[in-house]
Amino acid sequence: MTFRRIAIIGLGLLGGSIGLAIREGLPGARTTGWDRDPEVREAASRRELVHRLAETAEEAVADADLVILCVPVGAMEEAARIIAPALAPGVVVSDVGSSKRSVAEALGRALPGVTVIPAHPVAGTERSGPEAGFAALFRHRWCILTPSDDAPAEKIHALSMFWQALGAKIELMTPAHHDLVLAVTSHIPHLIAYTIVGTASDMEQVTQGEVIKYSAGGFRDFTRIAASDPTMWRDVFLNNRDAVLEMLGRFTEDLTAMQRAIRTGDGDALYRHFERTRAIRRQVIEEGQDDARPDFGRSDH
Amino acid sequence: MTFRRIAIIGLGLLGGSIGLAIREGLPGARTTGWDRDPEVREAASRRELVHRLAETAEEAVADADLVILCVPVGAMEEAARIIAPALAPGVVVSDVGSSKRSVAEALGRALPGVTVIPAHPVAGTERSGPEAGFAALFRHRWCILTPSDDAPAEKIHALSMFWQALGAKIELMTPAHHDLVLAVTSHIPHLIAYTIVGTASDMEQVTQGEVIKYSAGGFRDFTRIAASDPTMWRDVFLNNRDAVLEMLGRFTEDLTAMQRAIRTGDGDALYRHFERTRAIRRQVIEEGQDDARPDFGRSDH
Repeated sequence: MTFRRIAIIGLGLLGGSIGLAIREGLPGARTTGWDRDPEVREAASRRELVHRLAETAEEAVADADLVILCVPVGAMEEAARIIAPALAPGVVVSDVGSSKRSVAEALGRALPGVTVIPAHPVAGTERSGPEAGFAALFRHRWCILTPSDDAPAEKIHALSMFWQALGAKIELMTPAHHDLVLAVTSHIPHLIAYTIVGTASDMEQVTQGEVIKYSAGGFRDFTRIAASDPTMWRDVFLNNRDAVLEMLGRFTEDLTAMQRAIRTGDGDALYRHFERTRAIRRQVIEEGQDDARPDFGRSDH
Repeated sequence: MTFRRIAIIGLGLLGGSIGLAIREGLPGARTTGWDRDPEVREAASRRELVHRLAETAEEAVADADLVILCVPVGAMEEAARIIAPALAPGVVVSDVGSSKRSVAEALGRALPGVTVIPAHPVAGTERSGPEAGFAALFRHRWCILTPSDDAPAEKIHALSMFWQALGAKIELMTPAHHDLVLAVTSHIPHLIAYTIVGTASDMEQVTQGEVIKYSAGGFRDFTRIAASDPTMWRDVFLNNRDAVLEMLGRFTEDLTAMQRAIRTGDGDALYRHFERTRAIRRQVIEEGQDDARPDFGRSDH
């Protein structure tokens, strides 16, 4: 089976990019889209993010064989309840949420008897909204599927082929393991970036102007991440609470050890740690997950 | 006065970039260079980082009117003691170290009677060594000078003109204020990045391969910073201990507040914080301190 009629609910960075990537990678497929914000619908129409914009969510999904929910994870259940009565028989419902355990549960509750295959394309930028999407967003990125045990194999295969057509690589895992992995590779980095940018702007001895001026020393990288969509990230932290709090505990332990090394002047411990983390960067580059050029190849070089 | 004969001691990323930037921005000046590592000297010779490579540090500085020490901050005092007997009358000795209070003190001790004007160009990449330098490194970046009260105004002016010729913008402040500002904008971000990359690679429930694969969710940005030169950064933390520990205390306080908001499910507090930090990113872009394109304009877009 191949998906031919794809409905995208929510037309921000992710939903819009899926629409554009389908035009490039799956020219035979037809997309319908809907967003609850009329301004987003208008921008989506102007940018032609989907073939047809629907007036309602129900209308968007009515004849779809694949529905992808591209809304904040806290809004998944409500979106699923709205579309539930309008879904066609045999449809697959998926999503792009950054936490999977709570989403799998929410969609299971809202869509009894429907094939739900939660998914998370590990891709994004600090931009959000219908103007931010682009077709290449998923290229060389991993898309994690977290199907339940009773999901039909041919539908899992079809969803894998769909994401591969958009340029992604596929991995399958349980929702719980996904949430742990992403807590490390994404949620904690975002939480830390949001925190340090807040700390820096609250200093009384250092003005905010100074923080901005001298941000090239490292801080500016954190400001990029801390510019990500606030609603999306609020929902991620509320919905992946346990894994985030566990990882945060470990990070805090390690930070305390570094703090002690600085306080006691233990240069050897600092050096050993800093030497070790260099190797990780090399592996990120080798795996094709980042630009190999210094400073991400930023334009001032 | 204008500097015409410039000696660069230490030919890594910073020293090498100064040499290359002088060739572009100050074609009338002559550079001599030295590095204690013979392999670095050889690479510097091949890349023509300076006009003339000296056999010893003393020889490199002998007729210089400006000497720039480009060694880790923990090696400044020793480097200064070595060149002290060979310095010409009227010379200005400066540096590029990332902490300024300890460097100002060390150079003062080692070079009594010599005009010392500590400097810190807030620029760099995660690369280090003589192959990493490039002429545009300082363009649009701030260079902070921390002259003592008795430094002659015309020499401060000459050093300002020198850095402006290399593309930098100039700011003057006290060493203590510099160390506080840079603790926020550079040292703490590096310490956090080094820590989280270490934490992630020590997980037992999540493999290192998974951490690498799914790094596009945010983690990969931290690996870039955590690939920076370990010797340089060990020295920075040992030499700016007080300011780093103070800032770290504030960051930890703020992180604890975020942790509590997640634990208690306080979505409003999280949203308010995430909304606020977005504005900082806009200011970093407006001040020309980062690439405005999403994801730093990384090559996969």
